[in-house]
Amino acid sequence: MKSRAAVAFAPGKPLEIVEIDVEDPKENEVMVKILYTSVCHTDAFTLSGDDPEGVFPAVLGHEGAGIVVKVGENVTSVKEGDHVIPLYTPECGKCEFCLSGKTNLCSAVRETQGKGLMPDGTTRFSYNGEPVYHYMGTSTFSEYTVVNEINLVKINENAPLDKVGLLGCGVTTGIGAVENTAKVEAGAVTAVFGLGAIGLAVIQGLKKANAKRIIAVDTNPHKWPLAKKMGATEFVNPKEFDRPIQEVIIEMTNGGVDYSFECIGNVEVMRSALEACHKGWGESIIIGVAGAGKEIHTRPFQLVTGRVWKGSAFGGVKGRTQLPGMVEDYMNGEIDLDSFITHHLDFSQINESLDLLHRGESIRTMLTYGG
Amino acid sequence: MKSRAAVAFAPGKPLEIVEIDVEDPKENEVMVKILYTSVCHTDAFTLSGDDPEGVFPAVLGHEGAGIVVKVGENVTSVKEGDHVIPLYTPECGKCEFCLSGKTNLCSAVRETQGKGLMPDGTTRFSYNGEPVYHYMGTSTFSEYTVVNEINLVKINENAPLDKVGLLGCGVTTGIGAVENTAKVEAGAVTAVFGLGAIGLAVIQGLKKANAKRIIAVDTNPHKWPLAKKMGATEFVNPKEFDRPIQEVIIEMTNGGVDYSFECIGNVEVMRSALEACHKGWGESIIIGVAGAGKEIHTRPFQLVTGRVWKGSAFGGVKGRTQLPGMVEDYMNGEIDLDSFITHHLDFSQINESLDLLHRGESIRTMLTYGG
Repeated sequence: MKSRAAVAFAPGKPLEIVEIDVEDPKENEVMVKILYTSVCHTDAFTLSGDDPEGVFPAVLGHEGAGIVVKVGENVTSVKEGDHVIPLYTPECGKCEFCLSGKTNLCSAVRETQGKGLMPDGTTRFSYNGEPVYHYMGTSTFSEYTVVNEINLVKINENAPLDKVGLLGCGVTTGIGAVENTAKVEAGAVTAVFGLGAIGLAVIQGLKKANAKRIIAVDTNPHKWPLAKKMGATEFVNPKEFDRPIQEVIIEMTNGGVDYSFECIGNVEVMRSALEACHKGWGESIIIGVAGAGKEIHTRPFQLVTGRVWKGSAFGGVKGRTQLPGMVEDYMNGEIDLDSFITHHLDFSQINESLDLLHRGESIRTMLTYGG
Repeated sequence: MKSRAAVAFAPGKPLEIVEIDVEDPKENEVMVKILYTSVCHTDAFTLSGDDPEGVFPAVLGHEGAGIVVKVGENVTSVKEGDHVIPLYTPECGKCEFCLSGKTNLCSAVRETQGKGLMPDGTTRFSYNGEPVYHYMGTSTFSEYTVVNEINLVKINENAPLDKVGLLGCGVTTGIGAVENTAKVEAGAVTAVFGLGAIGLAVIQGLKKANAKRIIAVDTNPHKWPLAKKMGATEFVNPKEFDRPIQEVIIEMTNGGVDYSFECIGNVEVMRSALEACHKGWGESIIIGVAGAGKEIHTRPFQLVTGRVWKGSAFGGVKGRTQLPGMVEDYMNGEIDLDSFITHHLDFSQINESLDLLHRGESIRTMLTYGG
């Protein structure tokens, strides 16, 4: 089948909209017609060439939603016509990780997914007869994509796909980190570093958890109104101080925060987030993805005196089990997705959407495969 | 009152046994006759001059046991004749930390204790009319010492003080880190880095918790027999491998350990201990005290993929609440203290006991104020 796709042919180059060939789904695989996709910093990171695991040419994209058009053999959980969200964190329900009850990091297809391949070691995408790699098990930058059944969750067919696609990455990551990783309790004093989509989703999660104080930290004051709308109670701009921001926050909170979240991917900010925590019990959650080779560091005394350093991937959310409920939460007004969508563009304008993200002007641009 | 004491007059110099003057306890203070004390690496660290908070001259020592000889005004929880263990981690029961239910790090006397002073800003020790500083709120290297009431716990008077004094630091720290900080569950796969007193106590705690595998890691194979006696199931010597020990342990355990403990104070070992943890859920607990200015570091990916980095001070144990129960555990044979005591010396031989510790020949030397 022919499909419009934005192909990353080489690191550091713009995406190219071309017509690729998409093979039929094999056993345990599903073909999905993507209706909407958005661009996340992780796509931009891989496109830049800084991602050591990046392979080219590839169909990037991991935040979107669509409709099942064809299923391979032995697929039982979805059928043609089902509304679905692709999951870059799969859930097989059978591996050591899925059965542990302690993590959402399913290992069933980890090796091939990390290499841009389907489990049989080949790709379903090709261009001019040459294979094109998959990405994160999702590849939502192709109108027709093929994913593993375990990388797909069926959702309420009444949910607007141009909104709930955001649950495929950023929003779920942020809300999940609060609920599953930090398990924030009511009345907590908190700080959120970085007010992109993930930081804003963390703020929303903290508001849901009835945190008492939600200190939003960003060097760009233009991010503040939306953070406030999501539930932030205070704004701090590190550029306005000539001392480490953790000192400022410790002073503001009379000892530090109960929970902090790093939503940028900057290892120095990760340190600040940890050290802004309260002695004895403060927990810092790393969500941002750091550049290749970058390392976090701090004095071990920070941990010996009771701070805890954690991280979170996809918010600790088990996609196939938990995402349908989050879609319902959106339908019931308990999760706000609409406010994240600051721009709408046609899929053909995907490079413009990347530019908007790089310039910090958009939170999310919803791309439509309108044609 | 005159008292024999081993005074640290200057960093890097041997302790000197001299006769010092000890003032009567003031309000909320207690004078204790120390009968037994042992030497811990933290005493050696401060004596070396590497401890940035070290002050001289001082009476070091924080692991011991004795009998109350005099109480100051308003002291209600102990009286003359009570058998007691001094606590370097006090428990006031009233401060933000004590009331949090989340930490044992009482803040009531933190500021003065860290400076070697009693809460009124003075010392009870002097030598030739010049003040001698306190240390860690305990100063067990003086036959008569003065401590705050909240730095003291009354214990069963039938308990042998030459054994249970070890609960004043190392053994409690190790067992407590397993029970309070890591909360290790039965069947867990674990690794312990460093087989000094704390590492051995961790092993004992892990055995109590019914850990399935307890991998003991040390570069000194002479430590293995005692580790095995305490409950270790395997021994690994990093010197026998030409690759990082975390890789070896991940291979041995088919993915990493559920819990690891750093009991040395070496920031590179702290990294190994973290990275030896299982993706998705492994937790590493830092117990060792690192040198001044040293920093831990790792790739944040280690945390984002589910590992947790924690620390523990005095094993998370609230001394006045929990130590009497640990003394009973010893009396009932549930905690083995006797095996830690590899040497017995008179208090006058305290420098020899330090040498034994430095050379790795002793686990603990029990010093007796016999006279």
